[in-house]
Amino acid sequence: MPAAIDFCFDFSSPYGYLASRRIGEVAARHGRGVRWRPMMLGAAFAATGGKPLVELPLEGEYAERDLARTARFRGIPFAMPKKFPVVTLAAARAFYRLEEVAPELTVPFAAATFAALFAEERDIAEAAVVAALLRSVGADAGLAAIGTPAIEARLRAETEAAIGRRVFGSPFFFVDGEPFWGADRLDQVERWLETGGF
Amino acid sequence: MPAAIDFCFDFSSPYGYLASRRIGEVAARHGRGVRWRPMMLGAAFAATGGKPLVELPLEGEYAERDLARTARFRGIPFAMPKKFPVVTLAAARAFYRLEEVAPELTVPFAAATFAALFAEERDIAEAAVVAALLRSVGADAGLAAIGTPAIEARLRAETEAAIGRRVFGSPFFFVDGEPFWGADRLDQVERWLETGGF
Repeated sequence: MPAAIDFCFDFSSPYGYLASRRIGEVAARHGRGVRWRPMMLGAAFAATGGKPLVELPLEGEYAERDLARTARFRGIPFAMPKKFPVVTLAAARAFYRLEEVAPELTVPFAAATFAALFAEERDIAEAAVVAALLRSVGADAGLAAIGTPAIEARLRAETEAAIGRRVFGSPFFFVDGEPFWGADRLDQVERWLETGGF
Repeated sequence: MPAAIDFCFDFSSPYGYLASRRIGEVAARHGRGVRWRPMMLGAAFAATGGKPLVELPLEGEYAERDLARTARFRGIPFAMPKKFPVVTLAAARAFYRLEEVAPELTVPFAAATFAALFAEERDIAEAAVVAALLRSVGADAGLAAIGTPAIEARLRAETEAAIGRRVFGSPFFFVDGEPFWGADRLDQVERWLETGGF
């Protein structure tokens, strides 16, 4: 079985959300799985000097227009959260906690979390929302409350691993080691899967 | 006749070059012309706090890989210039000088200039190279030497007009007022031309 595609993202990344709606299908067409890796992009920005889109004056303003238009272009429901950026620590920790006890539920949980933030105007920074999202995919809502040192260390390690792979934005994909940054690159990801590289 | 697409770019923009190889065809499929508008992106960066790609540590490194790969993906000849960034003042002034005396030669000249920098490893900062490029498209090579105050003012005005339209990067397209940033957005430009907006 060929290796899964690594999909590194922060739950607060709107282009990450748009990409999340397409990557599974792209991968499946070529017999690949997708390994979803939520991370704390803020930690990567601290290491690289990067900044959240919304803090870049003209680029941030353009991005809001571009996101809404790109969502329409792809037929993906989208509404920019009123409160933004959002703290995604609770969601990311719940993801890795879930991976330990019910790994088959991680992708449904992550998809539901992205949709909650970017299509349903729900505040995923709240533990109660994360609990409801866990419940909605059939997981134990109690996991939302568990912030053990082991899970904190796990999320930190995943974030550091992404930084070690020179991830500086979200979404970031790795196909057999080849890095692709941005929702825009799924056409090249697909060609890479088809051809084994070009 | 529907309005031309405005294509704002800096001659030193590699993604601008990649887009320049496709925009004419996209526009022509929908009965549109393209108005090429070289500008001094550095002046826009001074206004917006932006930075050239190559100065962003991880993003710059990724961009070199992405540019070469995107060129292969699109079948466009490309070689990252060894000396970069390059001063594009001479080329941009020659463009606007040419527009006054032989406007039909501006697009061939701009295309030849982009190709010289990004496919032929020629240094377009040199007046002799700009003169040769003018000659290659059938224009008066002597135009390369003419830096009149009027032409300087013209280039400044074009750059300020672009900044006034909130252009913060290259390439930037306007289709009936709708802004599109990046070579990646030509698929949306095409849909916009087809549908009149979405």
